[in-house]
Amino acid sequence: MQVKVLTEILRANDAQAEQNRKLLDSRRVFLLNVMASPGAGKTTFLIDVTRRLRERLRIGVIEADVASTVDAEKVAEEGIPVLQINTGGGCHIEARQMADALSRFPLDRVDVLFLENVGNLVCTAGYRLGEHRRIVISSVPEGDDKPYKYPTMFHVVDAVVVSKSDLAPHVRYDFDEFSRAVRSINRDVDIFRLSAVTGEGMEKWCEWLVAQVEATRRCG
Amino acid sequence: MQVKVLTEILRANDAQAEQNRKLLDSRRVFLLNVMASPGAGKTTFLIDVTRRLRERLRIGVIEADVASTVDAEKVAEEGIPVLQINTGGGCHIEARQMADALSRFPLDRVDVLFLENVGNLVCTAGYRLGEHRRIVISSVPEGDDKPYKYPTMFHVVDAVVVSKSDLAPHVRYDFDEFSRAVRSINRDVDIFRLSAVTGEGMEKWCEWLVAQVEATRRCG
Repeated sequence: MQVKVLTEILRANDAQAEQNRKLLDSRRVFLLNVMASPGAGKTTFLIDVTRRLRERLRIGVIEADVASTVDAEKVAEEGIPVLQINTGGGCHIEARQMADALSRFPLDRVDVLFLENVGNLVCTAGYRLGEHRRIVISSVPEGDDKPYKYPTMFHVVDAVVVSKSDLAPHVRYDFDEFSRAVRSINRDVDIFRLSAVTGEGMEKWCEWLVAQVEATRRCG
Repeated sequence: MQVKVLTEILRANDAQAEQNRKLLDSRRVFLLNVMASPGAGKTTFLIDVTRRLRERLRIGVIEADVASTVDAEKVAEEGIPVLQINTGGGCHIEARQMADALSRFPLDRVDVLFLENVGNLVCTAGYRLGEHRRIVISSVPEGDDKPYKYPTMFHVVDAVVVSKSDLAPHVRYDFDEFSRAVRSINRDVDIFRLSAVTGEGMEKWCEWLVAQVEATRRCG
């Protein structure tokens, strides 16, 4: 019973995700689904990226949270177009919620849209939203064993961002060990190590994003 | 349809949780449900607590993970009785999985059983397992705004543990702000600030645990 219901939900979700993707393509908007644990530094990262790319891309943000508007407020302070979705207890965003958000977002004002998904390494990984690329942010203080513990997440993403690298001297963390764990699950994925505090790695990641946006425009 | 199915699942879960509780009480075993984000330091914390209380309580651990046995291996190295549950993709533990684990655990060897739940601040909060107390561990690098973003979790717990306090000098974190946020959701909950690295606050938390175990033995 539960399994059947879940299969039906996922099938309907995929169909809606495809609709979302068509809408985004017709409006020439690139959607990045940003997933992470609670407190991995998603909002800080996205604000930093937006500042760095301001001259090259028009960026907007959709904030998905179980409750509250604290992240959306931070983003809005930057003058970035932002929309808040509250899931009201839900642990992830589904394609129909994304469709609703897209219908309310000023798509003509952006080239790139970041979805800051609910802080959750499990449930968010299972739902396609129509995004062009997916990334997971895994922060240094979370430890280098996360890929083994949340393999689906590390399997479904196009890039892995290791955030808060400035905290590495203060905790036990082996970046090579982390990278090995990631590659055992997703062999060719891009891995970035960066810090919004020191700026390490930020430029390289921004170049990756720009290349993904350009590739999507060329090849759909 | 989805709502109806979920209601049925939760009702069946509560009934099973009650059975689990009766079993635990009849065996005089105190169960603590430990919830947190991925990487908040649950395993390190539980190992430290076990070392400190070794002379006073016989402690065992049930490790729940989406995948892998890395945490159970760390615990087993300490000579602590441990059982691993893998949810195979599931984002939380339900009472029937707990019942299965209890049936396989050597309950006569322990006074206290820690369940290290799946790293997840959303889904785990919704399922009673038959536990005597619930805590959430929220680590300093996750930031002081988590109670606003995951209110259900902070509402359902009996104590809040702020871990990795040794990292506070290296990040933006306001403990008073965090405490205010917690108390706006759960007015009388106990809040502990501690570090497994420096040992700060560990003794106080252990005293809290011992008091909870004694109160349960007196009053059921």
